[in-house]
Amino acid sequence: MTNTSALSAPLPIFVLNGPNLNLLGSREPEIYGTDTLGDIEAMVAKRAVELGILVDFRQTNSEGELITWIQEAREASSGIILNAAAYTHTSVGLFDAIVAAQKPLIEVHLSNPYKREAFRHTSFVSPAASGVICGLGASGYLLALEGLVALAK
Amino acid sequence: MTNTSALSAPLPIFVLNGPNLNLLGSREPEIYGTDTLGDIEAMVAKRAVELGILVDFRQTNSEGELITWIQEAREASSGIILNAAAYTHTSVGLFDAIVAAQKPLIEVHLSNPYKREAFRHTSFVSPAASGVICGLGASGYLLALEGLVALAK
Amino acid sequence: MTNTSALSAPLPIFVLNGPNLNLLGSREPEIYGTDTLGDIEAMVAKRAVELGILVDFRQTNSEGELITWIQEAREASSGIILNAAAYTHTSVGLFDAIVAAQKPLIEVHLSNPYKREAFRHTSFVSPAASGVICGLGASGYLLALEGLVALAK
Amino acid sequence: MTNTSALSAPLPIFVLNGPNLNLLGSREPEIYGTDTLGDIEAMVAKRAVELGILVDFRQTNSEGELITWIQEAREASSGIILNAAAYTHTSVGLFDAIVAAQKPLIEVHLSNPYKREAFRHTSFVSPAASGVICGLGASGYLLALEGLVALAK
Amino acid sequence: MTNTSALSAPLPIFVLNGPNLNLLGSREPEIYGTDTLGDIEAMVAKRAVELGILVDFRQTNSEGELITWIQEAREASSGIILNAAAYTHTSVGLFDAIVAAQKPLIEVHLSNPYKREAFRHTSFVSPAASGVICGLGASGYLLALEGLVALAK
Amino acid sequence: MTNTSALSAPLPIFVLNGPNLNLLGSREPEIYGTDTLGDIEAMVAKRAVELGILVDFRQTNSEGELITWIQEAREASSGIILNAAAYTHTSVGLFDAIVAAQKPLIEVHLSNPYKREAFRHTSFVSPAASGVICGLGASGYLLALEGLVALAK
Amino acid sequence: MTNTSALSAPLPIFVLNGPNLNLLGSREPEIYGTDTLGDIEAMVAKRAVELGILVDFRQTNSEGELITWIQEAREASSGIILNAAAYTHTSVGLFDAIVAAQKPLIEVHLSNPYKREAFRHTSFVSPAASGVICGLGASGYLLALEGLVALAK
Amino acid sequence: MTNTSALSAPLPIFVLNGPNLNLLGSREPEIYGTDTLGDIEAMVAKRAVELGILVDFRQTNSEGELITWIQEAREASSGIILNAAAYTHTSVGLFDAIVAAQKPLIEVHLSNPYKREAFRHTSFVSPAASGVICGLGASGYLLALEGLVALAK
Amino acid sequence: MTNTSALSAPLPIFVLNGPNLNLLGSREPEIYGTDTLGDIEAMVAKRAVELGILVDFRQTNSEGELITWIQEAREASSGIILNAAAYTHTSVGLFDAIVAAQKPLIEVHLSNPYKREAFRHTSFVSPAASGVICGLGASGYLLALEGLVALAK
Amino acid sequence: MTNTSALSAPLPIFVLNGPNLNLLGSREPEIYGTDTLGDIEAMVAKRAVELGILVDFRQTNSEGELITWIQEAREASSGIILNAAAYTHTSVGLFDAIVAAQKPLIEVHLSNPYKREAFRHTSFVSPAASGVICGLGASGYLLALEGLVALAK
Amino acid sequence: MTNTSALSAPLPIFVLNGPNLNLLGSREPEIYGTDTLGDIEAMVAKRAVELGILVDFRQTNSEGELITWIQEAREASSGIILNAAAYTHTSVGLFDAIVAAQKPLIEVHLSNPYKREAFRHTSFVSPAASGVICGLGASGYLLALEGLVALAK
Amino acid sequence: MTNTSALSAPLPIFVLNGPNLNLLGSREPEIYGTDTLGDIEAMVAKRAVELGILVDFRQTNSEGELITWIQEAREASSGIILNAAAYTHTSVGLFDAIVAAQKPLIEVHLSNPYKREAFRHTSFVSPAASGVICGLGASGYLLALEGLVALAK
Repeated sequence: MTNTSALSAPLPIFVLNGPNLNLLGSREPEIYGTDTLGDIEAMVAKRAVELGILVDFRQTNSEGELITWIQEAREASSGIILNAAAYTHTSVGLFDAIVAAQKPLIEVHLSNPYKREAFRHTSFVSPAASGVICGLGASGYLLALEGLVALAK
Repeated sequence: MTNTSALSAPLPIFVLNGPNLNLLGSREPEIYGTDTLGDIEAMVAKRAVELGILVDFRQTNSEGELITWIQEAREASSGIILNAAAYTHTSVGLFDAIVAAQKPLIEVHLSNPYKREAFRHTSFVSPAASGVICGLGASGYLLALEGLVALAK
Repeated sequence: MTNTSALSAPLPIFVLNGPNLNLLGSREPEIYGTDTLGDIEAMVAKRAVELGILVDFRQTNSEGELITWIQEAREASSGIILNAAAYTHTSVGLFDAIVAAQKPLIEVHLSNPYKREAFRHTSFVSPAASGVICGLGASGYLLALEGLVALAK
Repeated sequence: MTNTSALSAPLPIFVLNGPNLNLLGSREPEIYGTDTLGDIEAMVAKRAVELGILVDFRQTNSEGELITWIQEAREASSGIILNAAAYTHTSVGLFDAIVAAQKPLIEVHLSNPYKREAFRHTSFVSPAASGVICGLGASGYLLALEGLVALAK
Repeated sequence: MTNTSALSAPLPIFVLNGPNLNLLGSREPEIYGTDTLGDIEAMVAKRAVELGILVDFRQTNSEGELITWIQEAREASSGIILNAAAYTHTSVGLFDAIVAAQKPLIEVHLSNPYKREAFRHTSFVSPAASGVICGLGASGYLLALEGLVALAK
Repeated sequence: MTNTSALSAPLPIFVLNGPNLNLLGSREPEIYGTDTLGDIEAMVAKRAVELGILVDFRQTNSEGELITWIQEAREASSGIILNAAAYTHTSVGLFDAIVAAQKPLIEVHLSNPYKREAFRHTSFVSPAASGVICGLGASGYLLALEGLVALAK
Repeated sequence: MTNTSALSAPLPIFVLNGPNLNLLGSREPEIYGTDTLGDIEAMVAKRAVELGILVDFRQTNSEGELITWIQEAREASSGIILNAAAYTHTSVGLFDAIVAAQKPLIEVHLSNPYKREAFRHTSFVSPAASGVICGLGASGYLLALEGLVALAK
Repeated sequence: MTNTSALSAPLPIFVLNGPNLNLLGSREPEIYGTDTLGDIEAMVAKRAVELGILVDFRQTNSEGELITWIQEAREASSGIILNAAAYTHTSVGLFDAIVAAQKPLIEVHLSNPYKREAFRHTSFVSPAASGVICGLGASGYLLALEGLVALAK
Repeated sequence: MTNTSALSAPLPIFVLNGPNLNLLGSREPEIYGTDTLGDIEAMVAKRAVELGILVDFRQTNSEGELITWIQEAREASSGIILNAAAYTHTSVGLFDAIVAAQKPLIEVHLSNPYKREAFRHTSFVSPAASGVICGLGASGYLLALEGLVALAK
Repeated sequence: MTNTSALSAPLPIFVLNGPNLNLLGSREPEIYGTDTLGDIEAMVAKRAVELGILVDFRQTNSEGELITWIQEAREASSGIILNAAAYTHTSVGLFDAIVAAQKPLIEVHLSNPYKREAFRHTSFVSPAASGVICGLGASGYLLALEGLVALAK
Repeated sequence: MTNTSALSAPLPIFVLNGPNLNLLGSREPEIYGTDTLGDIEAMVAKRAVELGILVDFRQTNSEGELITWIQEAREASSGIILNAAAYTHTSVGLFDAIVAAQKPLIEVHLSNPYKREAFRHTSFVSPAASGVICGLGASGYLLALEGLVALAK
Repeated sequence: MTNTSALSAPLPIFVLNGPNLNLLGSREPEIYGTDTLGDIEAMVAKRAVELGILVDFRQTNSEGELITWIQEAREASSGIILNAAAYTHTSVGLFDAIVAAQKPLIEVHLSNPYKREAFRHTSFVSPAASGVICGLGASGYLLALEGLVALAK
């Protein structure tokens, strides 16, 4: 995965992706679509330019690393877009990190978890998030970017 | 509340609002913000013009009327934005109507229900909806408009 | 939806239909079949003639109206066939109205709710009903007519 | 159902009654007593005169109408007595409307729900109400009137 | 118990009865009525003649025998009427046998289980059955016969 | 605590208070108000004089003593007002004693338990009580006195 | 397993034993003791002689046979001692048969099920039984004999 | 209540009775029978003489006193018969005291709790007891005496 | 179903099959495969010869018979392979019999129950079994044979 | 048990012990150790001298007395160490008293309740306590003394 | 932990082991046996040679690394044997990775989780696995190898 | 985070800290206090010197690393103080590692989890720990050091 963070003064928005999202495009395309995570990163980068903001786009399979990135976002970001994937449903540590980060955060899911298995109906991210966008595929990331801009007004 | 549906050929997007949303602006502003439903309707109408689409914006306190409007949307709309408010959590009839409507539908909530009482964590709308946007205040309606446009591509 | 009640002395059987049943025929035909509610009304009317009884056939999307009709049936009917659809699973008011009505009542469902979502496995109508017939499509209405005749013996 | 609201300046107390209460007197008298709702309205009106207050007494089978009346009470009443009957146990919309109304509200039930079916042990009205009076029959309405007067001191 | 199956070509409908149904008539008549199982068998036989169909009417207290009869019905019947009585609520084996049988099957109960103990509200037969008829006493068997004829059309 | 029971013939109403109510006035006044239990006893005594009835007002921290007092009320009272406080939610023994007492009993709570912790939403007193009054502060005791008078008519 | 039923006029007490009790003596003696079922039968027979009553002592691994024996006891016994062993916890059919039998019945267990696995804490026999004796080993059968005699007085 | 303990060397059996059992005879005789606790004490004393054992028979409404008596029984008794009544279902302290007492203990109930309210289906005494006898009325105490004698062999 | 047990000295392995397994091959082949139970018996017999062991292969629809066979295996087998099918999920009697048998036992399922209905996720066999093999079709029986050989080392 | 409270000015720390703790040393020493409550009191007294604080050490089997002592501690103590033993898990009254006391309170348990029965995993003391120390035997009391000193800084 | 993957063309079977399995041999040998993970790796390697297949044997304490290895197996393996140990019971990410991998996978456990704590009775691996083998110690790995070979036929 | 482990012979106590504890001081100070983790490490080091023991103080956001450190503590420590933070509530792997470590371990939490969200009321550490200390802020670490010394005596 690449890291598009900028060196310049204004703080970027962190776009953080959790486990198995690196498989997008080939993994269950009837659920997750055919865009790869690279495609989504490119779409996000393009929209960020249009909105005049910076983004720092990352993916990891590790819960601990995701927590560390959110901690990093406390100092180094102006807001967070988080698709925590599987960790959404079980990670108290993510909840704690988001509360500690004190940044606007929008939870994003490509699919609509409420149409899927019962264990996907519980989220430890949602009660700590500013807002939630799900079921809208890759465009959910773009709407979340706009949403963070709207929240900042 | 007013009805902004157009007479011309392309089908409008129905923006349907449930019980107590007519009180927006004065009701618990720390949760729902200070925009009235009229303000939101105006913002939606403005964005719809920008996007070149029609909207039909309505509110009701009646579960039956909400069901009837979704039935109407089967024939008369190109998509639905639904903030079912309190009926979200209890209405099997809304679930049935949405499934029958076979239209793209985005569920919107001004506040983030997952930060509130446990009875707001269950939704009969979500498992029938294309997507969900919540916690982003009035801007959630605007993102939902864009989301419907994105889904239509 | 027409009203086939007669003016003559013997009291009709009320056949009351709840939300979304007006969509029958086009709504999920793999579950509900291809008969429209009008078709069912005609079949019921024909069988009623054969059995020498009157029927009053109605549909509504409103829980309150359904309750009011059952109240009306206390005085004006000799028995009730009720397909409360979605309200079956949540309406305490229907339970109260049926208990108060003190009339033989048969609950009917076109599909078999026990083959469907868990929220359809609970009924507030069943514990107040004389009997239940489900999963037999439109013919369930006809069997219910016969069942009411049998109960009256 | 009559409407006893006064035209003069001081705001009346709204006495709002939910589904099936129009059947009082004939419906399960061993549970609800033999007073009709008209009898109760007369008793309430008489006591209101003694207390020097106005009352506006209504009944409906519709959840939406009950919500609308509570909304109306925000502006037009000095307090609310609510017997929501069956909607007590399922209506999130009533909860929301009561919270938004910001008026003293006393929940009344003729019977004691805790002696009855388990589904009557849950109330969406109670957590939003100032107080609850149940199991005292028609006199519960009169005590609620006095209770509202006491709360206003 | 007797066996009324015919030798001739068209396959009979199996009418299978579970435990304690051999006590009908004397067992709790306020719940189950005063007809004996022999009375019901005679009524079913009479109606079958009217409908021009064959029936094979049996009763057993054994879960295993009930399973074996349903297996037999795969080859030897044109449809099944099953009153599994107590095994309704606990037998996974009946569920498996019915699914394997691939025949139209109507579940019948003399009483309405939803008016009785909570352990009678769960059925392993219902989710595998075509339809369910309950609470209509012995006439439920006759309606089930007609229902199977209707399903066969 | 004092004992205001009278020597004369008519039986008094027992007003029985459970654990921690002796702390009223200083304990969490935002929940329980600033009246002490002595203040409430005085208010109750004054209203009793107005109503021409006797009262016997007591408090204890002991579940066993509360049970014993209710047993005593079988012979020595004309009715009971019971604020069992914490024992409300756990005492099967209170339930048994109230059922055995066969006296009209009104359960009173100063606060509205349904606005508080989930463990206060269960009452072993309610299903054995004639009625319940809660959330109306000290005036709830006065309304309960009137309620007992009304029940006695 | 022998059958000690008498031919003479007074009806015997049926002592019915369920699955795996034929293994007593060798099966988990730390739980069930070292007496074989034959030993228990002999002890029961001896005590029956002392009490001047007849017993009919049986064992089966089949749920259906146990149901049939209880049905038989309706006509042929003066009371029932039932150790249904594993079927205790799952058999609705036993419950139905006992209710239909209308005979005094004492449920016996050698061990104390409440000291064992959670699935042994539920009994379908207890709510239909006159009484329960458990945890007293083989002497529980003897006490049950005396208990039936006491109930008959 | 009286205390029949003997001064002589062999240790008595403690027969301990919990809350509301002092009301026996007048309290719900259809459930508990017409024997008073004094009658039961006399029957127990008579049978103890026959069995050549001493008994110490007590009753209290206090959970703490019941615990203290069981502690006393550690030193001063040869076994315990405990009818803890309402405390059966809620008292962890009784469980702890019984385990600490290390004496044979038989739990007795006059009625069969499994035929009554669900909250009587849980016992903190049963898992600590040697055995349980219930539903056999006053004779249950006598059987328990014999059971303790049998356990002592 | 044939019986392949040998007469010679070494004890065979019992391969016991529960209800509906006699339908294999024709019953839901997408779940259970196309091998008949006879095919599996032949495969097992062939592998047993290779391993130098005897097998006794049986099937029944009766819970009681399955219990009896496991009892028989206490004396007559060197180990057990058990596919209890539907009884797996409900039979306490199987649990008791397996514990009493004190033989190595491997639970086998053709399909993977954890991919199927929730009621198949509970097993009364697993907590009493040495091991479990599921989801591997007919080859699961062969692996179980090898597993028993490995356990015996 | 003794009472070591001092007469001098600084307020003592109350060390309150609940039911069955008077049995320490002889009761289940593998769980609770061999120190008697007198031993613990001596250790606490010695450490209190070292820390220059006063202690008032008590034990009771009565829930009501424990509540009364905590009420007393409102005025007469500088902090509370509470081992409520069995009442920990069921006493709402303790919760209320602790909240009302407004004193630092440390909950102590000799054993680790989370290693024991499920009913010991719930505490009504913990949510009202400042802190909890468990599983450290008698030394837990000493650490609690130090903890109260630390909280007071 | 060594890596035995081969360089040659046919794809190896991945044998993946989760947290704490590196402690095998010394950790609770009464549950897990005395074989070390190295011993098991050697046994697996030996059997793989016999079967003519390659294996790649790994262990990690990290959930993220386990997910990454399963992702790797999508491209680089012909099948997976997974003993996810503790992560079995909580990892949604493993479930997602296995579903995405689209490879035959057999879940293995050394012990039988159904004989252990309740939290080990839930598996996120089982519903995504082809099959499950547990309770057979180290030989379970060998049977899983054979099982994968059988599945590949 | 520094590592203060000593090189000399006696084994140190491991003080292990889980996710987000590196944020202490700035993260929600009203809950966690204003001490940083560095402050706590210094306090612990100072007290360790006073007690004549060594400590090895670490923090990680990774569940796998925390497990690995506990494995390391099997060989390299004389005891463990574990504040597993968020992983406390979900990590079966920690439970397994602690059980395998066979070292005295005290669970520490700065805040009192029982005053917080319900998901913090479950601990996988507690049932494997020797003891628990919570709610006492940084001083809890110091008490835990003393507790380990006391356990070692």
